[in-house]
Amino acid sequence: MFEKPLGMRDTLPALFETKKLVRNRMSDEIEKWGYQFIETPTLEYYETIGNASAILDQQLFKLLDQQGHSLVLRPDMTAPIARVAASKLYKEGYPLRLAYAANVFRAQQREGGRPAEFEQIGVECIGDGTISADAEAIALMISSLKKSGLEHFTVAIGHIGYVNTLFLEIVGNEDRANVLRRYLYEKNYVGYREHVKSLSLSSIDKQRLLELLKLRGDMTKISAARELVESTTGREMVDELEQLWQSLEAYGVADYIKIDFNLVSHMSYYTGILFEVYGPKVGFLLGNGGRYDQLFNKFNRPESATGFGIHIDRLIEALDLDEKPNNIQCVIFSPENRKEAIRYAEEKREQGERVVLQDISGVKDIDACTSSFSEVTYFIGNKSKTEAK
Amino acid sequence: MFEKPLGMRDTLPALFETKKLVRNRMSDEIEKWGYQFIETPTLEYYETIGNASAILDQQLFKLLDQQGHSLVLRPDMTAPIARVAASKLYKEGYPLRLAYAANVFRAQQREGGRPAEFEQIGVECIGDGTISADAEAIALMISSLKKSGLEHFTVAIGHIGYVNTLFLEIVGNEDRANVLRRYLYEKNYVGYREHVKSLSLSSIDKQRLLELLKLRGDMTKISAARELVESTTGREMVDELEQLWQSLEAYGVADYIKIDFNLVSHMSYYTGILFEVYGPKVGFLLGNGGRYDQLFNKFNRPESATGFGIHIDRLIEALDLDEKPNNIQCVIFSPENRKEAIRYAEEKREQGERVVLQDISGVKDIDACTSSFSEVTYFIGNKSKTEAK
Repeated sequence: MFEKPLGMRDTLPALFETKKLVRNRMSDEIEKWGYQFIETPTLEYYETIGNASAILDQQLFKLLDQQGHSLVLRPDMTAPIARVAASKLYKEGYPLRLAYAANVFRAQQREGGRPAEFEQIGVECIGDGTISADAEAIALMISSLKKSGLEHFTVAIGHIGYVNTLFLEIVGNEDRANVLRRYLYEKNYVGYREHVKSLSLSSIDKQRLLELLKLRGDMTKISAARELVESTTGREMVDELEQLWQSLEAYGVADYIKIDFNLVSHMSYYTGILFEVYGPKVGFLLGNGGRYDQLFNKFNRPESATGFGIHIDRLIEALDLDEKPNNIQCVIFSPENRKEAIRYAEEKREQGERVVLQDISGVKDIDACTSSFSEVTYFIGNKSKTEAK
Repeated sequence: MFEKPLGMRDTLPALFETKKLVRNRMSDEIEKWGYQFIETPTLEYYETIGNASAILDQQLFKLLDQQGHSLVLRPDMTAPIARVAASKLYKEGYPLRLAYAANVFRAQQREGGRPAEFEQIGVECIGDGTISADAEAIALMISSLKKSGLEHFTVAIGHIGYVNTLFLEIVGNEDRANVLRRYLYEKNYVGYREHVKSLSLSSIDKQRLLELLKLRGDMTKISAARELVESTTGREMVDELEQLWQSLEAYGVADYIKIDFNLVSHMSYYTGILFEVYGPKVGFLLGNGGRYDQLFNKFNRPESATGFGIHIDRLIEALDLDEKPNNIQCVIFSPENRKEAIRYAEEKREQGERVVLQDISGVKDIDACTSSFSEVTYFIGNKSKTEAK
């Protein structure tokens, strides 16, 4: 009778207030950088958004509408924002800077696993192909996380174009490259090593594939990456990462950055620079982002785009905030004192205080009723009396 | 490709900001009255929430989860809040004051009709059976609407118990009463009159049924209502409405109130005092509420409850606010001036201004790009230059 569907959760008052606080702090900063928030429907057509989204089909909540069309509960916000940017907002003059704070939906297979509905806050910068746009997305992500109160976090930055180019140089075709990419995507470095050893490649090429695993760390990895790749394209991608690093230094946020040429955040979505942000605990992913220059083709408007999304519940977990008392007062009155009690509550509310006004005849258990308030004032009989709790 | 499901809408930046403003103004007031906001999942089990909800089955969005259970997109917030109040928050000590600002879902049959997803903001006061709780719900609704900026509106107040009692006294059974109730529910007073004329009743009884239609207006209708009903129960219900009126006078909000003994807001949901709020245009329903003392039986915890819900989009339409310019500045820089441009934007943002920072090489059409900003500052070559738009 009280059950909820798998992965669905209630947000009770204390967590609701924390979430609101964190959402407001992040969105204030996002707005200051000139991004504009929009809202899109919870339900979209499977044909458009379901297909354009980066989420696996088995994770989609699907339904039929009364006209027989397949619908999905939006699994992310990037595809819906691309739909709006490519249609209604197309005339606005690119680059377009949009933001969202919205719940997204991912069907789960088992109890106790991940949430099936969770809030993401993020931005999309559309129509700007420069590395400056990538730098802005990362700098804004860092700035808004700092404004939310988070002190310790790391942003790992990679380039999927570099990984793809290096793999093609060495293994020669997309299928083989895909197998390697999947190991990196799963962060299964042991499996990657064993797979590399099993390949029929020269020992030099095998060594190059293994060297890739070492390209994680500080900015010295950038020149190491340049040496590992042979093609001009590959080197251009290293140049992009170097440019990005310089821009992030100009923003004064380079201390948060770690270079990671092993980063594969998604199997097919990103096309260039990509990044992941981790909280103070090891491996605790708070959000991610990157460049996705192919998505807009699905809406017949080729455009470059980059953005990030932060998982608000995980951010709140990482913030580890103290639960604040709700600070609500209670005024308990008997009917003959109604007017005085109302005036008293009104005055307190005008001063910004939170005041419950309670008719004593509506209370069954006065102790249980008053236990959660910071202060209780009684207007009963001829006199009023305030008790601090 | 750009289509959205029937009744689904995007909220673009200007409307988004208006909505946020109105939502914040209303929720600030609701919080000051000691109500605490919660969030519940978008998806619920059909067996529990679908059945407990007041919404017709054909208006529910239904789907199957991967375990084969029937789910619904929540059609209202009252049933989910009752679920939480009857389970997780049961120990908190009643009366419980909860609030929500959430999207709800109602499947639509045709294009150009009502929205299939829309935001409601409202409260539920649970576990207080006194008329004071009804008065509080109405007074808070009025106060939060005033805080939202709405000046002219009317709250029609009725009592479904009175209507039911009067009908049973005259027509003798529930089926016949139901036919009469449906005419009132549809506000089809012409149909009601004709139906009354067609009934095999004494002319005195017919006259009583027709007299009911006159019980709309100022507080003098309360004594007229008392004369029309015969049973003690019926008179007690008139007494309740009179008590309510006195409480609302104590709150100083009686000017917004109209008595309407014809009010039937829903065919089976409300059990006592109920109300509807109308905007400045005739017949423009902004929201409604009332007492629903049966719903908690469905969660095996009999409790009295009352509340209201306001349709935010309709409130915004009634407010008729001027669209404000977005007041975003733009700083356009060439790469050699990156640092100076970043510092400049940072300073402005620290002063609370909204500043887009744009690399000139990311812009295809400089006029289209700059047209939407309030001010543009260039950091190009050796000098900076600001242009007001």
